[in-house]
Amino acid sequence: MSLERVKVLLFDTFGTVADWRGSIARKGEKLAREKSLPETNWDAFARAWRAGYKPGMAQVQSGERSWTPIDVIHRERLDEILTDIGLDSALGEDERQAMNLWWHQLDPWPDCLPGLARLKQRYLIGTLSNGSIIGLAGMGKRAGLPWDFIFSSDVFKAYKRDAAVYLGAIDLLNLEPAEIMMVAAHNDDLTAARSHGMCTAFIRRPYEYGPDQTSDFEPEEDWDVDCHSMEDLAKALGT
Amino acid sequence: MSLERVKVLLFDTFGTVADWRGSIARKGEKLAREKSLPETNWDAFARAWRAGYKPGMAQVQSGERSWTPIDVIHRERLDEILTDIGLDSALGEDERQAMNLWWHQLDPWPDCLPGLARLKQRYLIGTLSNGSIIGLAGMGKRAGLPWDFIFSSDVFKAYKRDAAVYLGAIDLLNLEPAEIMMVAAHNDDLTAARSHGMCTAFIRRPYEYGPDQTSDFEPEEDWDVDCHSMEDLAKALGT
Repeated sequence: MSLERVKVLLFDTFGTVADWRGSIARKGEKLAREKSLPETNWDAFARAWRAGYKPGMAQVQSGERSWTPIDVIHRERLDEILTDIGLDSALGEDERQAMNLWWHQLDPWPDCLPGLARLKQRYLIGTLSNGSIIGLAGMGKRAGLPWDFIFSSDVFKAYKRDAAVYLGAIDLLNLEPAEIMMVAAHNDDLTAARSHGMCTAFIRRPYEYGPDQTSDFEPEEDWDVDCHSMEDLAKALGT
Repeated sequence: MSLERVKVLLFDTFGTVADWRGSIARKGEKLAREKSLPETNWDAFARAWRAGYKPGMAQVQSGERSWTPIDVIHRERLDEILTDIGLDSALGEDERQAMNLWWHQLDPWPDCLPGLARLKQRYLIGTLSNGSIIGLAGMGKRAGLPWDFIFSSDVFKAYKRDAAVYLGAIDLLNLEPAEIMMVAAHNDDLTAARSHGMCTAFIRRPYEYGPDQTSDFEPEEDWDVDCHSMEDLAKALGT
């Protein structure tokens, strides 16, 4: 697909921009020191927390459950995990509320700030993420991510890979699909974006899930761009 | 109302942040020089163009017309005015399309960049505007407005002062109304925001409409903040 017409880049955030596993694990370790919690594998905790995300969204996608913001899904899963790992009595309501906000305070992969700064010079750049508006805006502000706009599932009341998210973004931007490029570290996100006519860029994030990573090491289709970092994407697009 | 709880500032843009009259007039003068157009009062042109905005929105608000993006309303009005002022044959389709994008390239009042930089340190800052997403994002990028997010009527498929816009913003932010402050140069915008429980800040923009300005010289209610510039607002909020 010709990339000449692309005006807007839409970015998946969890995994593509944000290193959620490292960020959550570091925050867990810090909390454990402050509260003298029992020894816990916080990297495994981060992965377990994240693992609750897809089943939680699936209930919404199937219609089994009405629209439920991601922050609610995260909180429900947090309560389950704290019981599973024996920390239920150690952490009260205030601490759980604070922990749930960790998803609003994720650190980006190190290539994101320099890469996005270059991409922003030529393109409008925004999120297209299953995160909440306030979580994405807060994360962007804290990390200095220079988004021109934030698109969140909150706006579309649907989660990726539902068509409503991609079609909603195309409608809000009032552009042709081919003028928009979806950037993601997950093949299925790009498959959905392409099915609605968007251009596609795959960023390899082989460390996203650590020992749990079983897929998305490589492109599974001939995406318009295949790259290893945000700076690599900036180079591929000539910015 | 206590301002201690405010976390997010929502800004009206046309008039409050952007000097649409001066911006459009300057662009008209430049175009006239380039194209050797007949002598035209471009300040009056800007005001006439803007004057088509409220009747255009009113048709949507009354239900007489289905949802129509502001860029379409602007374009319809442009065609009418060019006929009215005798420039219909002088400007073709390409030029009209480019002129319509002037609304995406407005200059902010000079106090906005320094004021918003200070306010952004403490608050999440975003637009709540009748502009289009791509227009607001483009304007912000071009001028360097440091928005954390963009809320546009496009998202709510309704124009201010419809309740759907304010209630939609409160819902998307997932905050209590009292945690949100509406900032505007127009009393009726603040009346609507307050009716939904938001805090309110009035910025005096006595030069917005030039000779056409007949209202909004002063606050018409006891808004939580009454100020003369964005820097003044930053000072009032202690940032």
